[in-house]
Amino acid sequence: MGRRTTRHPALRIIAGADTRREVATLAVEEPLEIRVGGAPFVVTMRTPGDDMDLAAGLLVSEGAIWDREHLPTIQYCTTVSGRSEQDYNTLSLTVSPDVPEPGSARTTTMTSACGVCGVDSIDEVRRTTHFPLGPVEPLVAAEVLLSLPRRLREHQRVFDRTGGVHAAGLFTPDGELLCLREDVGRHNAVDKVIGWALREDRLPLGDTVLQVSGRASFELVQKASMAGIPVLSAVSAPSSLAVDLAVDARVTLAGFSRDDRATVYAHPERIHD
Amino acid sequence: MGRRTTRHPALRIIAGADTRREVATLAVEEPLEIRVGGAPFVVTMRTPGDDMDLAAGLLVSEGAIWDREHLPTIQYCTTVSGRSEQDYNTLSLTVSPDVPEPGSARTTTMTSACGVCGVDSIDEVRRTTHFPLGPVEPLVAAEVLLSLPRRLREHQRVFDRTGGVHAAGLFTPDGELLCLREDVGRHNAVDKVIGWALREDRLPLGDTVLQVSGRASFELVQKASMAGIPVLSAVSAPSSLAVDLAVDARVTLAGFSRDDRATVYAHPERIHD
Repeated sequence: MGRRTTRHPALRIIAGADTRREVATLAVEEPLEIRVGGAPFVVTMRTPGDDMDLAAGLLVSEGAIWDREHLPTIQYCTTVSGRSEQDYNTLSLTVSPDVPEPGSARTTTMTSACGVCGVDSIDEVRRTTHFPLGPVEPLVAAEVLLSLPRRLREHQRVFDRTGGVHAAGLFTPDGELLCLREDVGRHNAVDKVIGWALREDRLPLGDTVLQVSGRASFELVQKASMAGIPVLSAVSAPSSLAVDLAVDARVTLAGFSRDDRATVYAHPERIHD
Repeated sequence: MGRRTTRHPALRIIAGADTRREVATLAVEEPLEIRVGGAPFVVTMRTPGDDMDLAAGLLVSEGAIWDREHLPTIQYCTTVSGRSEQDYNTLSLTVSPDVPEPGSARTTTMTSACGVCGVDSIDEVRRTTHFPLGPVEPLVAAEVLLSLPRRLREHQRVFDRTGGVHAAGLFTPDGELLCLREDVGRHNAVDKVIGWALREDRLPLGDTVLQVSGRASFELVQKASMAGIPVLSAVSAPSSLAVDLAVDARVTLAGFSRDDRATVYAHPERIHD
């Protein structure tokens, strides 16, 4: 398992004060190569840790798999490079013969923030979920929703040390934390949560709320939709496309959720007093 | 030209107060398809505006082009979809016969945060710059460096309205703003600045400082290096790989630059009293 943080000498500059040397703690960012059925599938930049969740979640977000049975094996390739530092940077997955292998769809590199790589034209950006959301009914109290950023923050262990990673936390409607993952990439953190759910045989994630630390882009709404998550709440702003997709996919979307306030952009009916 | 912001009805929830309806202003996020030599090259999610800068900068960041002469034409395709809403979401580029066409390297979709899509294995993540940085010599005063986040913020017009976009600003060592671009994606904002520089025939960008609004990931350091930018300053944290690359590529890297403080992780010798 790779390290999640590392230390590096740095110089601290403060206006009106002496410059001082310090040792900074950094969030680790390293490439992870994911192979499916032996063929290169994608290289993604990520913070090491929960790599198998990340790989599984990525395939769920792509719509390639949606059941634990679809992913019989995940293992590290430890003999790929002949260089020990890459031993835990390559994962090999096999996909059940029941589902088409996604390998040919993507041979790309993603940054730590990618989430929808692999389509060739504008019309293919939107994916069809295997878990369409049902009628919009009251699910979570406003008080609980507003408490989630604080609950998320309380569990961000890597952020505590580095100030430099995103987090995604899956909560019950009562505000109980089910799973929290951190990563330098917003999208990776969400994929790690969704991959955890697949591997725990919990998909679709009905009756849950996903709280994320950053902004709500189109891809995060898409990931929530692909996993059947009915409520997505973000600390920062949503984009126009995120709101459009949330409206269409019946995902409740909240943004600017901080300091006991939030703005709800789609399907507020799931939030009750 | 597409719109940069749009309006959407929303519900504002405040703990202990009545819920109220409002009309929220959102940063627009839309897919842009980029074609090179007639062939699909990449689809990227971005905020409309400065699309030609974005496309040009993306090719510079990839190492595919590095001189204005390499990019004879960029134009919108207005007859691609037969649907008027996509008229300004497809750009067609031609690349000079002097440089190899990058078209075959990438037929992928990137999110608004991607920057290094298109390589197949871990060893290809790092690119070779056409503008290697020379000796590290004093370039910018600490006082100027610490002032850049404030100067950037003063010019973020789309952020003013939405609270939801990133910015990248290119400054002289005296703190004069040369070019500022905004986008829902951190990487797009930087690519737009670099593409502006290519189209203005200003590459390499020696003797400049690039200030960005978010964190400093590996890809942002790589983009700075590809454009010959000697100093990169970020409001938020750098990752380990960003620091490693900055050290190797001789890029001065500052992070957590806010509130009159900054931490310098690589080549602080460019910063003088």
